[in-house]
Amino acid sequence: MPLVKEERQSMMEPILTVTPVQEFPLANEGGNRIWIKRDDLLPFSFGGNKVRIAWSFLEDCLARNCDAMIMYGDRRSNLCRVLSSMCAAAHIETIMIETSEHEESSRMPFNEKMIRLYGTRILQCRKDRIADTVDRAFEMLREEGKRPYYIYGNRFGTGNEGTAVDAYVKACPEILQWESDTGNRLAYLFTACGTGSTLAGLTAGMLEARSKVSVIGISISSRSSERAESCLNKAARAWYEKEGRKVPQKLEEALHVETKYNCGGYGIVDQRVTDLIDRVFLETSISLDPTYTGKALQGMLDYLKEHEIRDQNILFLHTGGLPLYYDYLAEKALPGDTKEAE
Amino acid sequence: MPLVKEERQSMMEPILTVTPVQEFPLANEGGNRIWIKRDDLLPFSFGGNKVRIAWSFLEDCLARNCDAMIMYGDRRSNLCRVLSSMCAAAHIETIMIETSEHEESSRMPFNEKMIRLYGTRILQCRKDRIADTVDRAFEMLREEGKRPYYIYGNRFGTGNEGTAVDAYVKACPEILQWESDTGNRLAYLFTACGTGSTLAGLTAGMLEARSKVSVIGISISSRSSERAESCLNKAARAWYEKEGRKVPQKLEEALHVETKYNCGGYGIVDQRVTDLIDRVFLETSISLDPTYTGKALQGMLDYLKEHEIRDQNILFLHTGGLPLYYDYLAEKALPGDTKEAE
Repeated sequence: MPLVKEERQSMMEPILTVTPVQEFPLANEGGNRIWIKRDDLLPFSFGGNKVRIAWSFLEDCLARNCDAMIMYGDRRSNLCRVLSSMCAAAHIETIMIETSEHEESSRMPFNEKMIRLYGTRILQCRKDRIADTVDRAFEMLREEGKRPYYIYGNRFGTGNEGTAVDAYVKACPEILQWESDTGNRLAYLFTACGTGSTLAGLTAGMLEARSKVSVIGISISSRSSERAESCLNKAARAWYEKEGRKVPQKLEEALHVETKYNCGGYGIVDQRVTDLIDRVFLETSISLDPTYTGKALQGMLDYLKEHEIRDQNILFLHTGGLPLYYDYLAEKALPGDTKEAE
Repeated sequence: MPLVKEERQSMMEPILTVTPVQEFPLANEGGNRIWIKRDDLLPFSFGGNKVRIAWSFLEDCLARNCDAMIMYGDRRSNLCRVLSSMCAAAHIETIMIETSEHEESSRMPFNEKMIRLYGTRILQCRKDRIADTVDRAFEMLREEGKRPYYIYGNRFGTGNEGTAVDAYVKACPEILQWESDTGNRLAYLFTACGTGSTLAGLTAGMLEARSKVSVIGISISSRSSERAESCLNKAARAWYEKEGRKVPQKLEEALHVETKYNCGGYGIVDQRVTDLIDRVFLETSISLDPTYTGKALQGMLDYLKEHEIRDQNILFLHTGGLPLYYDYLAEKALPGDTKEAE
């Protein structure tokens, strides 16, 4: 007898709840009120923006009548963990293509551990062999009688940019509703920016709603401004095309990614960021991680100061990534043993 | 300039949100509908029943005009972690008395690690020296000019049972509201039972509301039935006394703890429980832990079968304990490396 009933769609329906916005008691010199939207609390697989995005991919996969999913990412990937979890619940086969350069560290990151526990098969390859490995994953699944879906579109990883973007276009009404319910008009909305899907979605969603909020992404990788902006633009345009909407003239001007707060590149972090993570955890119980949210929050604080932004309502989107916080904690050495023997 | 503003009470106000109830797609032979109340999602310090209970202690501490807290628990204690977190946010000094017998394992449990990160001072002692160590903690804090509060009352750990119980009396209206909103009338409500505060609170709360639901605790420790029932009774009566209410005649009959599903004692677990944890995680993304929730859920399934309970609505309270899931995951060996080299 199976543990779990067949109709498990019901388990996934309630995951896209409206997440809370809390006042974030961060001191800042400009007298701004800083708010935090807790997308880290989305009630599925430890939360995070990837829950909305994975849901968007899964809906697209089912709409295309596919029954197997191919994904691509780093071994620390939050998206691949949430997708693996959602697909396991939906009984959809998964293959992950993974190109991480493995460090000497013997600890397996929690996301990779969970991806494996969910039964996702991992194909490792060099970065110059991704397209071939996508082909191979398609073949493997087709030989098993499956109809595979690759989240990034074709073998070169293009053609499906709009699907991930859509997830955060759809999240914008929640934020607008909060503004309207509380009377707090936002001047800025900040988020971490990796691939840019979340940022593109927020920007397009706010433009569509004729909101005046400035949406700013803090890049957490080593992408140049030009490359980051070009990816963002492409992603946003893909969404307009997918939806059959006219691209607004203001789009290019509205897409805004800051690359100067990246600490030197993906996964690189400095002491200011780790100090911020520890202090935010101590003072608020909110966990940030060094790769995405901690770096983005420090970048936001620096941006507000450098641009002398004062007396505004500022929203920081907490994009989750809880397993990365536990990685951070597992590797953290404690400052001095405070044990006292009786 | 401090990171965090002084008025940080605002960070703690929104933590007692109404938690979702989801249908839990657990197959069971009796055709029961099983629901899960996600108190693991309470939005503070990784959630769990201890968020409600810690909040109750903190309110009591402040009401008594105290400004330092003494707590007692195991190094894996969820309560001590949440209390440390809440007190750090409220700038309240904390001392934890800890009597764990330390195993040879070199890994520090995540809860202990966080308790230390929050700045809680830890006093270790033998189990026969707790009262003396409570005295010592009081002295230390008084010498620092503080007014200490001990969560368990006097030096023998009695006199404050009602405060923790109150947290789950106050949670009962949420469950009743869910029944009324959905039209699902519950026959049984199950929860893990350690000290019994949660179970006593649910039982008293349901009695006060004249609900017909049977509240059943699955004991996760080696306490005998007699000892578990006596503790429960004491805790529930303390709540009635504290509230100045008459103890109902039905109380003793309504308090119900099952001790046969404890796998042999606190922290002891068998393969059925770990298999259940892995399968629930795989199929639903919900994380259970071996010490409390996993054992309690297996106990509930066994109870339903053994008592031939059929065609009923059953609610399982997920009491959280996420750091214990990560401990479990950190120590878990993966079944075979599925990596394939390209």
